[in-house]
Amino acid sequence: MKIVLDTLGGDRSPAELIAGGVAAIQEYDIEVVFAGDQALIERELRKYPQVTRYSILHAPEEITMNEAPVEAVRRKKKSSLVQGIRAVRHGDADAFVSPANTGAVMAAALFNLGRLPEIDRPGIGVLVPTLEGRRTLMIDVGANAECDPEHLLEFGIMGTIYMREILGVQNPRVGLLNIGEEPQKGDSQALKAFAYLQQELPNFAGNVEPNRLVEGGFDVVVTDGFTGNICLKAYEGAAIVTVRYLKREIEKSFLAKLGLPFLWPALTKIKREMSAVHHGGAPLLGVRGVVIIAHGNSNAEAIKNALRVAKESVEHDVVGKIERGVHESLVHLGLVPVLKGAS
Amino acid sequence: MKIVLDTLGGDRSPAELIAGGVAAIQEYDIEVVFAGDQALIERELRKYPQVTRYSILHAPEEITMNEAPVEAVRRKKKSSLVQGIRAVRHGDADAFVSPANTGAVMAAALFNLGRLPEIDRPGIGVLVPTLEGRRTLMIDVGANAECDPEHLLEFGIMGTIYMREILGVQNPRVGLLNIGEEPQKGDSQALKAFAYLQQELPNFAGNVEPNRLVEGGFDVVVTDGFTGNICLKAYEGAAIVTVRYLKREIEKSFLAKLGLPFLWPALTKIKREMSAVHHGGAPLLGVRGVVIIAHGNSNAEAIKNALRVAKESVEHDVVGKIERGVHESLVHLGLVPVLKGAS
Repeated sequence: MKIVLDTLGGDRSPAELIAGGVAAIQEYDIEVVFAGDQALIERELRKYPQVTRYSILHAPEEITMNEAPVEAVRRKKKSSLVQGIRAVRHGDADAFVSPANTGAVMAAALFNLGRLPEIDRPGIGVLVPTLEGRRTLMIDVGANAECDPEHLLEFGIMGTIYMREILGVQNPRVGLLNIGEEPQKGDSQALKAFAYLQQELPNFAGNVEPNRLVEGGFDVVVTDGFTGNICLKAYEGAAIVTVRYLKREIEKSFLAKLGLPFLWPALTKIKREMSAVHHGGAPLLGVRGVVIIAHGNSNAEAIKNALRVAKESVEHDVVGKIERGVHESLVHLGLVPVLKGAS
Repeated sequence: MKIVLDTLGGDRSPAELIAGGVAAIQEYDIEVVFAGDQALIERELRKYPQVTRYSILHAPEEITMNEAPVEAVRRKKKSSLVQGIRAVRHGDADAFVSPANTGAVMAAALFNLGRLPEIDRPGIGVLVPTLEGRRTLMIDVGANAECDPEHLLEFGIMGTIYMREILGVQNPRVGLLNIGEEPQKGDSQALKAFAYLQQELPNFAGNVEPNRLVEGGFDVVVTDGFTGNICLKAYEGAAIVTVRYLKREIEKSFLAKLGLPFLWPALTKIKREMSAVHHGGAPLLGVRGVVIIAHGNSNAEAIKNALRVAKESVEHDVVGKIERGVHESLVHLGLVPVLKGAS
């Protein structure tokens, strides 16, 4: 299996990203196609003479974090981002992983891979840790700043299929991210969305607030990309503060200091676990191909994990299952016409 | 100083809320006016024969969490919420504290106290803990689900005054809560807001993401009530998960268990510190009177703290300082007409 790794456009150096790719080659038995500056990639790979299962896609042009996505993708056709996704489009690779400008990855995927039939808005899903240790898929967390209820329905259906097929959840419950649990809570957009999901999505289970989401009562939580991104980044921020405060308290207390050596492994694990939302890499669901968006600040370990998620998505045929599942759902809901005799 | 405590409409029992009021009377040298069911309040207060600095406002009608705010406030004129705020309006009390339906508190305050001149949208501010141990005022966190840029400007000015006058911050920096730091990030609403604040608010310092907010680079962060509420509840959820995960890890590891006794005080403090966003009680800024909104799930300690915030707001004349400060700012910005010869 060939997976393209975009070595440009992240917050970390290409060297760091390449190290993650190398680790993935060794651990997951995949071939990585390194997209970026050939000379630089070759220089880095000389550090790992034992690694041979790779190829290089020379595309030195970089799309930066603060470029306007659509425009950048149109203009920078030679960028590692655009060239890497085109390799998937042309069947030269099975999946694409990038820590670059999320909007640009989204735009490049739409232009070059296209949407699945009956999907209007692909969405980025992220697995959020809950108290039970289970995970809840929050979608969308940044692909579409503005969404109509119809788009949230698509997210709900795609999320349901992802949780059922990939994580083996029997009957996924879908919630709507909102500022209250009661049906009449929220802004005008949330009210419209609630009514629509209530009516159209059989496994819709109501509103869920970000502080209740972590209790794990929902398997999929749908939201527009702006709200989802705010929620995701708030989880990240609070986790960092909590662990930092704890360390500060420990430093302050002589007695606690005595306990610290015993506690260090646990503390380290928490930080890893809480930042898992980034480490996993987030699937862009609804496009015709496996595209995994890694956090912009991804280090080698995060990139390695994103490549693992990409591999699993290919193995489980996420794209095919979503294509078939969405069609079945929409037909079942009477939301797509069925040609006479077609059934 | 007389402060009204609404004993109805919270998630906890009136008995729990009354216990908080009693603690505040004893610690903060204030008189509490208990608003609610007289018989019940008298029965509870018999438990504290030593407490005498209180009065009772008999208003047994309750506005519940899932009532439509405006309608409920119009219909239930005899409710503890409406009667309590009217006591402030008529000068029978100096401040009002309630854990009830946020929208209803907001509506009752608008109808009965009214806005300060030149304030179109009062906002709820909450002090969020940061890594430096400083706090950042996030406003609005739920009063107005939808806001125009002009409303965010009002929040920015009120927040600046609050941080300067009450927390003594010399030159407060104001940020806009958004999903990216670059000016062109966010949905259409965020883009409009950024341009407007950039132009009108002298101490505007740019966009801030929820995960960076905790780094403490901003003193005030403005946002619409929907986004602010999502962000606040996400902080709460993540803090709960992080502490819970840590405890779970500790239970699992024999070595860490050895450290636990030393660490318990620190762990307890963290939980308190991270939930401080709720414990403090959130000021409703921009209305003609001191109104403190406590978290719906407030326990006795949270209510006690909310009463302390109310007392401090009265002592520091928050309302008067905001009224004068907003006028000065708007005149300075040329956003309000100044009558000839008025200066």
